[in-house]
Amino acid sequence: MKEEKMSKAEKDEALKAEIKALRETLAGQQMQLKEKGLPVIVLVEGWAAAGKGSLIGDLICELDPRFYQVVSPAAGPEREDRYPFLYPYAREIPENGKLVFYDSGWMECAVRRYLRREITARQYRERLRSVREFERQLRDGGYILLKLFLQIDAGEQEKRLRSLREDYATEWRVTEDDLWQHREYKRFRETYEEFMEDTQEAVEWHVLDGEKRRHTVRDALKLLTETIRKGLENGRYVGKPFKEDFPLLDMPRLRDVDLSVSLEDEEYRQELDRLQKKLGSLHNVIYRKRIPVILCYEGWDAAGKGGNIRRIAKPLDPRGFDVIPIASPEPHELNRQYLWRFWTQLPRTGHIAIFDRTWYGRVMVERLEGFCSEADWKRAYNEINEFERQLTEWGAVVLKFWIHIDQDTQLQRFNDRQNTPEKQWKLTEEDWRNREKWPQYEEAVDEMLEKTSTENAPWHIIESNDKKYARIKTLKLLIRALEKACGERL
Amino acid sequence: MKEEKMSKAEKDEALKAEIKALRETLAGQQMQLKEKGLPVIVLVEGWAAAGKGSLIGDLICELDPRFYQVVSPAAGPEREDRYPFLYPYAREIPENGKLVFYDSGWMECAVRRYLRREITARQYRERLRSVREFERQLRDGGYILLKLFLQIDAGEQEKRLRSLREDYATEWRVTEDDLWQHREYKRFRETYEEFMEDTQEAVEWHVLDGEKRRHTVRDALKLLTETIRKGLENGRYVGKPFKEDFPLLDMPRLRDVDLSVSLEDEEYRQELDRLQKKLGSLHNVIYRKRIPVILCYEGWDAAGKGGNIRRIAKPLDPRGFDVIPIASPEPHELNRQYLWRFWTQLPRTGHIAIFDRTWYGRVMVERLEGFCSEADWKRAYNEINEFERQLTEWGAVVLKFWIHIDQDTQLQRFNDRQNTPEKQWKLTEEDWRNREKWPQYEEAVDEMLEKTSTENAPWHIIESNDKKYARIKTLKLLIRALEKACGERL
Repeated sequence: MKEEKMSKAEKDEALKAEIKALRETLAGQQMQLKEKGLPVIVLVEGWAAAGKGSLIGDLICELDPRFYQVVSPAAGPEREDRYPFLYPYAREIPENGKLVFYDSGWMECAVRRYLRREITARQYRERLRSVREFERQLRDGGYILLKLFLQIDAGEQEKRLRSLREDYATEWRVTEDDLWQHREYKRFRETYEEFMEDTQEAVEWHVLDGEKRRHTVRDALKLLTETIRKGLENGRYVGKPFKEDFPLLDMPRLRDVDLSVSLEDEEYRQELDRLQKKLGSLHNVIYRKRIPVILCYEGWDAAGKGGNIRRIAKPLDPRGFDVIPIASPEPHELNRQYLWRFWTQLPRTGHIAIFDRTWYGRVMVERLEGFCSEADWKRAYNEINEFERQLTEWGAVVLKFWIHIDQDTQLQRFNDRQNTPEKQWKLTEEDWRNREKWPQYEEAVDEMLEKTSTENAPWHIIESNDKKYARIKTLKLLIRALEKACGERL
Repeated sequence: MKEEKMSKAEKDEALKAEIKALRETLAGQQMQLKEKGLPVIVLVEGWAAAGKGSLIGDLICELDPRFYQVVSPAAGPEREDRYPFLYPYAREIPENGKLVFYDSGWMECAVRRYLRREITARQYRERLRSVREFERQLRDGGYILLKLFLQIDAGEQEKRLRSLREDYATEWRVTEDDLWQHREYKRFRETYEEFMEDTQEAVEWHVLDGEKRRHTVRDALKLLTETIRKGLENGRYVGKPFKEDFPLLDMPRLRDVDLSVSLEDEEYRQELDRLQKKLGSLHNVIYRKRIPVILCYEGWDAAGKGGNIRRIAKPLDPRGFDVIPIASPEPHELNRQYLWRFWTQLPRTGHIAIFDRTWYGRVMVERLEGFCSEADWKRAYNEINEFERQLTEWGAVVLKFWIHIDQDTQLQRFNDRQNTPEKQWKLTEEDWRNREKWPQYEEAVDEMLEKTSTENAPWHIIESNDKKYARIKTLKLLIRALEKACGERL
């Protein structure tokens, strides 16, 4: 009742005061977020000229700049992309205790490309699913997410675009794409609406009226402070493990693997030479066809991963591959969702990334050493399957090798390392400690192989009591996969 | 004598054996490098089709892939560049204990662009100087550098380019640029030669005959193992401070600064509003003209850096600026030359980077706390001047603010923080400890201001006993600098 009696000037003053108070609340919350180590993601999507940038400016103006960042990953044309769809967003997620504002993000990127017909309907559906997975994984990893869509109608958009174009200082802001969006307003509206319906599950959308700037700011601040308040109150969210519906390949248990297989020296040398030549020439084709390749190496200590990788790497053009050694995470890596440090190291299209240990650390060492909660590692099987499906949908060839030996062989190799001065650096106290936990590791590995060997990203157990056999087998598997990929694609 | 009597087959065998032995030496050295934490950079330059990639492949094939990386920063056309000339190389320097191989680098990039007339003669000279500075800084920071140039003559190049183009798998390797280089062989040869003469000072060039593959490999391995051997023998190189010939601006001593200046509330509010509006519209022009802007904030604890930065940031489009808080370096940052973590955070052209603390930590906290050697910080004045000159030659506006207060004001603000619950997080034990070292810091700051205030990257002392005065002064200085830059450029 009271508000109705207020004059326009009084209403304005009240609104200003409300915004001021909300901004102060937000500034206070920022410090609590920092203290509690909670990360916040604010996604601001919406129409061209709806005022996304200004809104973000109005949200951050009282924040401490040390603890937030604004990212606006440019959505160039699809053909220029050398990385997966979600890569530009995944690499920018905040550290614990910080906020990131996305000035348009995965929604705009997917929708524009679909409407521009740069991706097919199926690819668009895949991206919708990737988005759902991405958002759920972030939520389950303790991220506080707020998704805003800034709405203006076609008439308002026209007015704004015109006024931007009339001023030298701002005309560059209106792109061809924006004008095209305006002409196609109706198609865009339908697609935006569907997109939001399809991605409500883990994190809901909020549509904000973008017409009256101050009201928009007030409403956004209310939503943001309320979302953060809840997050602070409930503490870090830990997602539950969920039912896995991935079609999985049958894998043998480790104890059933026949490790007696071996190769004679002469045959090994001939095969090695032949296969390396083949791989070297395939590398050219891979590069030319822009197929990204991701090789994952896991295995027992002293199983021979290093030597195996070297035999793969030898014939490759050094410009076209990288070996990525994965050690225990550094502080800035621990402070983000666990897959982040792998997202940031993905190969470009046409390149080969060889991961020497991988994201599977989550369900092995992190599980066994208690570096993450039970819910965390139990959730990881599915999260990893989703991650790898996103990689293969992007077009990557993904192969995973478990380099396998038995306990006796490991002991021999440990002793050999200990007794050979130039190999001693390879053997650490930790290796001996891990060795004592062989049964627990074996259980974890069996579970990992069972739950994460998919058609698109299969596990291969590489018998490596005889390293020569192991190298040849890996080379053959890789070559087969590459030939298949090269054969299938233009 | 003996060699002359050998048959061709015998010579071949001897060469193979020699290469094998050298590779083993190199593999052994790799582990010693790791142990001693010495970083190695191998720059491989040379003619198109001279075999740079294959040579690198032949150098690395026995190395442990965890401890080296091959980088081949693509040298696209100048106009596509949003970063300084050396940025793609500086960001890829190795960590301590690792090797990086550059598959062509700063030489090729500078020479091609010069010969393509994408940069002027003066810009080319500036780049030559940048290269000299970059290499010297790396050497002085303990990096082991080897620079190779792979030589083939015009006839050999023609033969190789033809044979690459005749095969589907390799034809993509020959670019238009390569063919153009071949047509312009003579001009390229002269420019390469001059480039090498002009960049011999800190690190010498080695020209390798690229005609006979195995001989090339042998010679390169010899040079590399010899260079590393010397590095291992001598231990980490620490460069000497050198004479500074930068034209420096006169700066007052801190104790002579009049801190009594202040502003009335009313004037402050009006000025703030007026200047922020101006800055906001200048930001559009900056963006449009693609001028990069780098603001450096240093100052006493509690001097008001944060609030000052917020007043600058408020009118800026959040898509076009970043605040970069600089804390103590993380392990992966400590393991590289100290400027690396700043190189990697430079803004793109048209963007504004606001550094909340900067590379000047080297000559303040690192100097006073003994985090680096005396030679290190004494060398840093000049290194920083060079770094900043490279930034302004790239086109950046660089401004440096020393936010200044006196000891009494600091004490008041510390006490205020201690007594205000929502500000307590801002005050740490370290702040109190630093306060006790005020005289030493004052001496270090005076020396810093004296030695690093250049025409192109000047220091401004911002009197901040009255924060309002400080904010208005900073805004005015920034606006003046941006207007000047906008006025001067197309």
